[in-house]
Amino acid sequence: MLKTIQLDDANSAVVIVDQTLLPGAVEYISLTDIRQVYEAIFKLRVRGAPAIGIAAAMGLYIHMKQQPSGDFFCEFENGRKYLSGARPTAVNLNWALGEMAAALEKNRARPVGEILVALKQTAERILSDDSRICRAIGRHGAALLKPGMGVLTHCNAGGLAASEYGTALAPVYAAQEAWVDVRVFADETRPLLQGARLTAFELQNAGVDVTLICDNMAAVVMAKGLIDVIFVGCDRVAANGDTANKIGTLMVAILAKHYGIPFYVCAPSSTIDPATATGGHIVIEERDGKEITHEWYKTPLAPENIKTFNPSFDVTPANLIAGFITEKGILQPPFSCKW
Amino acid sequence: MLKTIQLDDANSAVVIVDQTLLPGAVEYISLTDIRQVYEAIFKLRVRGAPAIGIAAAMGLYIHMKQQPSGDFFCEFENGRKYLSGARPTAVNLNWALGEMAAALEKNRARPVGEILVALKQTAERILSDDSRICRAIGRHGAALLKPGMGVLTHCNAGGLAASEYGTALAPVYAAQEAWVDVRVFADETRPLLQGARLTAFELQNAGVDVTLICDNMAAVVMAKGLIDVIFVGCDRVAANGDTANKIGTLMVAILAKHYGIPFYVCAPSSTIDPATATGGHIVIEERDGKEITHEWYKTPLAPENIKTFNPSFDVTPANLIAGFITEKGILQPPFSCKW
Repeated sequence: MLKTIQLDDANSAVVIVDQTLLPGAVEYISLTDIRQVYEAIFKLRVRGAPAIGIAAAMGLYIHMKQQPSGDFFCEFENGRKYLSGARPTAVNLNWALGEMAAALEKNRARPVGEILVALKQTAERILSDDSRICRAIGRHGAALLKPGMGVLTHCNAGGLAASEYGTALAPVYAAQEAWVDVRVFADETRPLLQGARLTAFELQNAGVDVTLICDNMAAVVMAKGLIDVIFVGCDRVAANGDTANKIGTLMVAILAKHYGIPFYVCAPSSTIDPATATGGHIVIEERDGKEITHEWYKTPLAPENIKTFNPSFDVTPANLIAGFITEKGILQPPFSCKW
Repeated sequence: MLKTIQLDDANSAVVIVDQTLLPGAVEYISLTDIRQVYEAIFKLRVRGAPAIGIAAAMGLYIHMKQQPSGDFFCEFENGRKYLSGARPTAVNLNWALGEMAAALEKNRARPVGEILVALKQTAERILSDDSRICRAIGRHGAALLKPGMGVLTHCNAGGLAASEYGTALAPVYAAQEAWVDVRVFADETRPLLQGARLTAFELQNAGVDVTLICDNMAAVVMAKGLIDVIFVGCDRVAANGDTANKIGTLMVAILAKHYGIPFYVCAPSSTIDPATATGGHIVIEERDGKEITHEWYKTPLAPENIKTFNPSFDVTPANLIAGFITEKGILQPPFSCKW
């Protein structure tokens, strides 16, 4: 599997696969300052809720290495706020930056060199924890799969969105390791085509039977009886179980309910945000309409100056979700502050 | 409004707007033999159920003009069969060719020159009837609209798919003429983007307030309360009311049911095919997966050799449809042979 994110040998750069170039080219880029990390998150060179948390933590660490010691604490706060603004919806970004802040707080009295070691260890722990968490999600989710079952997924919540197994694809990979082969249908996921470019790419690479469909074909494959279960990732889960995930997830959940197909959200428990009461409180990022009209195309495929609406996420109400597959097992809302 | 289809001055070519070039260029092309007409229908240079019926009828007429009189009847049958294979799903194609056959039959004993006049008049009547029918659909549909209402539509069943008003957009145009302005949300309609390229184009041209969204955003605009009614066209209606239309229509219908929004199918009554008992009997065209992975793009946006599923249409069960807005009023199934 590709290493989506890592620190370089000198611990002076965050090295990522530039996901905007996939599947045409697998290109690693080194992000050597905080502005480059911000840009990579904002432009979706690194994307997926767990992955942007890891990238931000590592980015904050390399930023702090570059600080003259005088401004250290103030600069940490500035850097943290700056990175947290790169994308508003995923809770993991703020969660990971909060872990870094806790590490700083705990080591505040120590010399800067030691604080930096603590920050580095925290960033690397977030990465390695994520890897273990994804494997646990895979184990819990794979228990739902039998050979030959059809799985539908939306967007990319695979290894490229996290580490190794990913979240929504973790059950598929875990099943495959246990010689349980399933068929996956991947929604292409307009406008940014993460399903076509990333999910189809990583599943095909892994030897999983994958069929690419347009988002608007999800109903047909369900109507034909080809889908037994749906796995999606998520960016934030409210206390009541309402779930923000990539635009189109709500559509898939409603279709699944119509056809009586169980719809599961796969995520680290850190994605559950008990401070957000309901989905109505989740900030939904709206992005440039050119993503719909211009991105990827040889020529613009809509009239000039056409009005667009381009929410990057939607909120699926808890009552459409069969369960939350986390590292701690399959959970049901409401979620209290212990998460 | 654009003239989507017409005979040229010499009645020797079918002149169409090449819809594959919209919205970048408005280009008329002359189809001077039956193979060019077939190609234009197959490649979607002319598309939309009513429009392909008109194009096929005109194409068959110019083909017959080119026949040496000896083979006339045999060649008519060959030409009719050839054109009817250009696209399998829309009933209008065969219906229009059947009207031409009826005209031939009625005039079989007459000289070829007179038969050709009858064929020309039939093709032109199909076009002018379509125009009147679309206006009637508009009148019946507009009765459902109040100022400021939100309308969602999928694919293009506007003037480009038929003549003048079109079918699904006819109520919007008829309302606009009566100074009742509505807001339209147009699904872009993957993979061939008829919503972005054609519906957004023609509504913007007509001064209608139109917002372009990705197909997977239909649920969100409904959840936000922005949609009061849904109008779509269709390619074939079975006797029980099951309806084949552009891929994604089923998705929209299920979402509409979930949100309690009335979902109407707009079509000439000739689209109702009582000979087809249910949607299960409708042949659904599957097209090349490259439409998903390559078409329009600067570079392929899915891995090489990825498996795809690309049905061009889906079938919406009758129980999801609030009514069929035809030239004869808003109808309910079942439909008997009188249609």
